[in-house]
Amino acid sequence: MLVSALLTSVGINFGLCVLFWTLYSCLRKQPANYNVYAPRLLSEGRSEGSGTFRLERLLPSPGWVRRAWKSSEEELLSSSGLDAVVFMRIITFSLRVFTLAGVIGVFILLPVNFSGDQLQDVNFANLTSDSLDIFTISNVKNGSKRLWAHFCAIYVLTIFVCFLLYNEYKYVSSKRISYFLSSKPQPHQFTILVRSVPVSAGTSVSNSVERFFKEYHPTTYLSHVVVYRTNKLRYLINDTKKLYKSLIHLRKEPAAAKFQCSGFFGLFKGKGDLVDHYEKKLENLEENLRLEQSDVSLAGEEVRAAFVSFKSRYGAAVALHMQQSDNPTQWVTEQAPEPHDVYWPLFSESFMRRWISQLVVLVACILLTALFLIPVVFVQGLANLSQLEVWLPFLKNILSIAFVSQVVTGYLPNLILQLFLMMIPPIMKFLSSVQGHISNSENIKSACNKVLWFTIWNIYFANVLSGSAFAQISIFFEPKNIPARLAVAVPAQASFFIAYVVTSGWTSTSTELFRLLPLICSLIRKLFTENTDDEFKAPSFPYHGAIPRVLFFGLLGITYFFLAPLILPFLLVYFCLAYAIYSNQFINVYAPKYETAGKFWPIVHNSVIFSLLLMHAIAVGIFTLKRLPLASSLIFPLPILTLIFNAYCRKRFLPIFKAYSAETFIKKDREDPNDAMTAEFFDKLATAYRDPVLLPVQYSSDSGSQNRPLLSLVED
Amino acid sequence: MLVSALLTSVGINFGLCVLFWTLYSCLRKQPANYNVYAPRLLSEGRSEGSGTFRLERLLPSPGWVRRAWKSSEEELLSSSGLDAVVFMRIITFSLRVFTLAGVIGVFILLPVNFSGDQLQDVNFANLTSDSLDIFTISNVKNGSKRLWAHFCAIYVLTIFVCFLLYNEYKYVSSKRISYFLSSKPQPHQFTILVRSVPVSAGTSVSNSVERFFKEYHPTTYLSHVVVYRTNKLRYLINDTKKLYKSLIHLRKEPAAAKFQCSGFFGLFKGKGDLVDHYEKKLENLEENLRLEQSDVSLAGEEVRAAFVSFKSRYGAAVALHMQQSDNPTQWVTEQAPEPHDVYWPLFSESFMRRWISQLVVLVACILLTALFLIPVVFVQGLANLSQLEVWLPFLKNILSIAFVSQVVTGYLPNLILQLFLMMIPPIMKFLSSVQGHISNSENIKSACNKVLWFTIWNIYFANVLSGSAFAQISIFFEPKNIPARLAVAVPAQASFFIAYVVTSGWTSTSTELFRLLPLICSLIRKLFTENTDDEFKAPSFPYHGAIPRVLFFGLLGITYFFLAPLILPFLLVYFCLAYAIYSNQFINVYAPKYETAGKFWPIVHNSVIFSLLLMHAIAVGIFTLKRLPLASSLIFPLPILTLIFNAYCRKRFLPIFKAYSAETFIKKDREDPNDAMTAEFFDKLATAYRDPVLLPVQYSSDSGSQNRPLLSLVED
Repeated sequence: MLVSALLTSVGINFGLCVLFWTLYSCLRKQPANYNVYAPRLLSEGRSEGSGTFRLERLLPSPGWVRRAWKSSEEELLSSSGLDAVVFMRIITFSLRVFTLAGVIGVFILLPVNFSGDQLQDVNFANLTSDSLDIFTISNVKNGSKRLWAHFCAIYVLTIFVCFLLYNEYKYVSSKRISYFLSSKPQPHQFTILVRSVPVSAGTSVSNSVERFFKEYHPTTYLSHVVVYRTNKLRYLINDTKKLYKSLIHLRKEPAAAKFQCSGFFGLFKGKGDLVDHYEKKLENLEENLRLEQSDVSLAGEEVRAAFVSFKSRYGAAVALHMQQSDNPTQWVTEQAPEPHDVYWPLFSESFMRRWISQLVVLVACILLTALFLIPVVFVQGLANLSQLEVWLPFLKNILSIAFVSQVVTGYLPNLILQLFLMMIPPIMKFLSSVQGHISNSENIKSACNKVLWFTIWNIYFANVLSGSAFAQISIFFEPKNIPARLAVAVPAQASFFIAYVVTSGWTSTSTELFRLLPLICSLIRKLFTENTDDEFKAPSFPYHGAIPRVLFFGLLGITYFFLAPLILPFLLVYFCLAYAIYSNQFINVYAPKYETAGKFWPIVHNSVIFSLLLMHAIAVGIFTLKRLPLASSLIFPLPILTLIFNAYCRKRFLPIFKAYSAETFIKKDREDPNDAMTAEFFDKLATAYRDPVLLPVQYSSDSGSQNRPLLSLVED
Repeated sequence: MLVSALLTSVGINFGLCVLFWTLYSCLRKQPANYNVYAPRLLSEGRSEGSGTFRLERLLPSPGWVRRAWKSSEEELLSSSGLDAVVFMRIITFSLRVFTLAGVIGVFILLPVNFSGDQLQDVNFANLTSDSLDIFTISNVKNGSKRLWAHFCAIYVLTIFVCFLLYNEYKYVSSKRISYFLSSKPQPHQFTILVRSVPVSAGTSVSNSVERFFKEYHPTTYLSHVVVYRTNKLRYLINDTKKLYKSLIHLRKEPAAAKFQCSGFFGLFKGKGDLVDHYEKKLENLEENLRLEQSDVSLAGEEVRAAFVSFKSRYGAAVALHMQQSDNPTQWVTEQAPEPHDVYWPLFSESFMRRWISQLVVLVACILLTALFLIPVVFVQGLANLSQLEVWLPFLKNILSIAFVSQVVTGYLPNLILQLFLMMIPPIMKFLSSVQGHISNSENIKSACNKVLWFTIWNIYFANVLSGSAFAQISIFFEPKNIPARLAVAVPAQASFFIAYVVTSGWTSTSTELFRLLPLICSLIRKLFTENTDDEFKAPSFPYHGAIPRVLFFGLLGITYFFLAPLILPFLLVYFCLAYAIYSNQFINVYAPKYETAGKFWPIVHNSVIFSLLLMHAIAVGIFTLKRLPLASSLIFPLPILTLIFNAYCRKRFLPIFKAYSAETFIKKDREDPNDAMTAEFFDKLATAYRDPVLLPVQYSSDSGSQNRPLLSLVED
């Protein structure tokens, strides 16, 4: 890539960013857009806007940037929970790493690279003085003593990153503990999920559970809730809710519009008839629903699982950690998630079916990750110029314009790839949900991991090791050749990834600020429907999409740090943008839905360790290639030390993210006051884990105002 | 190999076996050999022999075989513990497997192989009708439909083995639980070991432990014993004991012998002087010892570890399974071993030193296993004929005799290999003891695993994949080629391994019966010393040597089952011999020292699963080689199903071997009567885990009669 090309790309993307930011600064102040740009404030009833028009509403103002940049961690913790804090810490961690890396890279490595003359010596035919390659390590003379600068830089960065990683792990785990210690009593702290309850003939699951826990945990056992098979009920409720919505819609609409509609199609009955018809249908459905509900709870579509609550957190923890039964496949215990975090559809599946679907999901994920690019390349091949002209002949004239055809051939394949990539987080989330996690937050966490490895494989390795998917995979069957192959392939893609940081990093993050997709959706909805404020809910933050993206830029930065330090300033800009934007979005847009209390951090740690190891592997290859075998051998202790460091961290910190300690539980238990509040909490605890579909139907997800059964609403 | 050669080998080894058995049947009845052939009975005071001479003592009698063969599992369980039962079950398990395999192999596969004519068609130059190869799968025509017989046999055997494995795992784990339920209260059931106790300045380890457990386990905590750094003391005690022995020896010896001795050297003093000198030295040593003992316990060479006892088994289990502290590297808990099973020297090492030695041991084991044959081959090369003639010129005439030189060249390398191999179990046990296990039984278990993989690598793979060690290892870097390489190499070694079963299996096991080495040692001892009955102790069974050997024959049988079914009858004979011999040895020779309560079984299970997978890999290769690709592909589900079966067993049974369940603990706790016996037990529990070197010195390992302090003995 040429410097001029890079500058063009930077210019275009900088322009786009400025455009997005300006538009955002304007649009966010329009009350009509509050549901896009401040849904959280709106749902909390805190949106500040008044309907009155003022001139400043049309002028972009940068106040939000200052507010976002200055928002403190305590504020974030209290408003969005520990997960949001962890996410922001990924960004500040990256900022720290790449500040040091940037200083070393730009002021030491870049001059060293630039002053080398390897590339001029070799004198490639196509080398101009404009080439970006003169800023990379390729330009340093083979066997040159100057390569020791790179060698030292690798050591310094590794030590610095490990030091930061250790501190961050320590900080996050202490936060996790203090978060637990400062939390109010919550149902999931007192509850475990028991699965594979053995049932002897003649007794119910409920009886078995009660007998077992009264026998073996007599002093701590409080109550239990058996899980029911409710898939059928779930479908019925969905149908009812849909019908109810149509009915409400029909009632609210002005009579004219309806008559017009029914007149237009001619086949429909008048408004009165339609409403009557719907009401009858709804009544029938409700009758069914009630029957089914009582059926489920009485006749016993019991799943062999139950949420068992205890009188103390420590009691629950003991039951969780001890193997309960002589047969380890029975009475399998698991930490219960928060009540609203339970992923209910899962419980309907039998054990065998869940086990098989786990295997299937595993295979599907591996296949999707390894072979993703094959269909994408195929579709990109279909969408070339001549195919478009065949399919859409009316475009022929337009496509014959040189500029248009260039844009189409240049951008269309990229657009297709981006569209496919956008589908990955939802797909991975879906796969995770099939896999057998009992809570939504676990699904998200698992999807986060899957998306991360998918991204690393399909963006990093697919670009670096160009060739067929099988040729790529084959590299792992010859572990000895990995450094050599990486050393050749990785530096060659330096300019591609610099451009990637600018386009995908800068612009995509600004799109996240601008919320292009929700904006379009909102506009379309406004055009076609009128009642916009029913069922309005702030979205939850898509950790499974955002964390892998940030981590991937970290990987890029670490592996290209000594190869092509030119990438670092661009990355720094990216992380600054990301900090401001995500901080702002946490304040205005996303509301926390579930809390994992920092369980995302181990994923971050592993990813950074992997980046370091990858950097070391590339360094070994590079120094061999550059005929500095001594440096190549002296790098070897580094990955080993990094692995030992990682092993230590796994031992020191990881258990804290799996479970709290006896010390913590007992401390917390002793803090609980012995008053009416606590008694009330324990009363509530007994029913906290009832399946929502077995409760009286609510037609709105808002729990407050519209929480009355339907019939009363129909009858009034 | 030719049939005649095999018959010769069988003949020689059969003769040796008969000789050993006859000799054993005679010698065991001589009272002089009781310490070799019935040390267990002797040490228990149950040896039946009288000093009077009877003629029948000189005649061999087979009564012991009947007795050994008929001894029931209950008897074995009560006399030698669950570990012995598990060991015998390995043999009965193998007998069952190879009975079915033998029937299929000899009556179906052998005729099929024999009736093939592939080898005659190819007509090797050196093929005679006498060759053993016509009994192997190599003789079946390429692409022949008859290979489906082998295919079916593989499926049948795999299913049968998995069925048996499941039943055995189930049986052993139920035995383990019932063994626990029927056991008397034992200190290790109530005790855990706590390591990495954090100590704040000004307090001792003991105070820290007490404060922590009184705070967080107030209802169940009973007492604790802090571990001290006692290496110095251990050396002192050893010195004292040695000196004491010499003194006793000196006193007992007739005066004549001593004067002769001291006269002979001229430098020694008379008997009286010598005894005085020794007594003085001993008194000094004892003084030192007492000072050191009080030093250790007072001034505090405390290790940051303690044995903590609880009032109930369940209380101990809860403390064991819960993470105790917010910092997972502190208050690390571990199940305590039986008090006499604790491996005390270990505790003197610091945490870092133990961690490093773990790494070192790991590397040492891998190197030893992978590169063992290199020095062996080198030594074997040194010990050839011409070298011997150079070193020992007086042998020249003898070595020039053709027969002698043949024996030397044929047997000497083999002998050297055997000598080296004999050193492996002790070496592995030593390495395990350095590794950081806290009990002797853990050391043995770990050594058992190491020896098993060592045997499989250095006998199986080294023979099959002949070539340099590095060439062998390289096979694992090309996983795709494993089946093809095995398919070529494994059948070629069939006759070698048949001979191996006969020589190493039959004769070595008979040597175990005959106890050649202890017999020789005993004879030598009798020749040079006179007092033979002091410090007499029955040896404990060398599980780390015996289990890998039996498992290795199982591996041979399973992998050669369909390749060369001729091996199966020989294996069956081996397992019958082993059953009779080991059963007899458990009755007469070995006394149980530690009890792991069946923890060896998971090793057995894993080894058999590995054998099955290896067989499948070879089968895939063979069917490809024999041009029956369909069979080759249809084998593929088999390893996958085997792995799934293994995964299920790991989930279903393995946890039982790690820890008992809450159910079991609570049941057992409720059974304890609330009487004086129990109170006495709890009193003893408080001191059960004191380091033996801190107790008053005992000069004999017999705890009964000679349990008085030395000075009293010196003074009387």
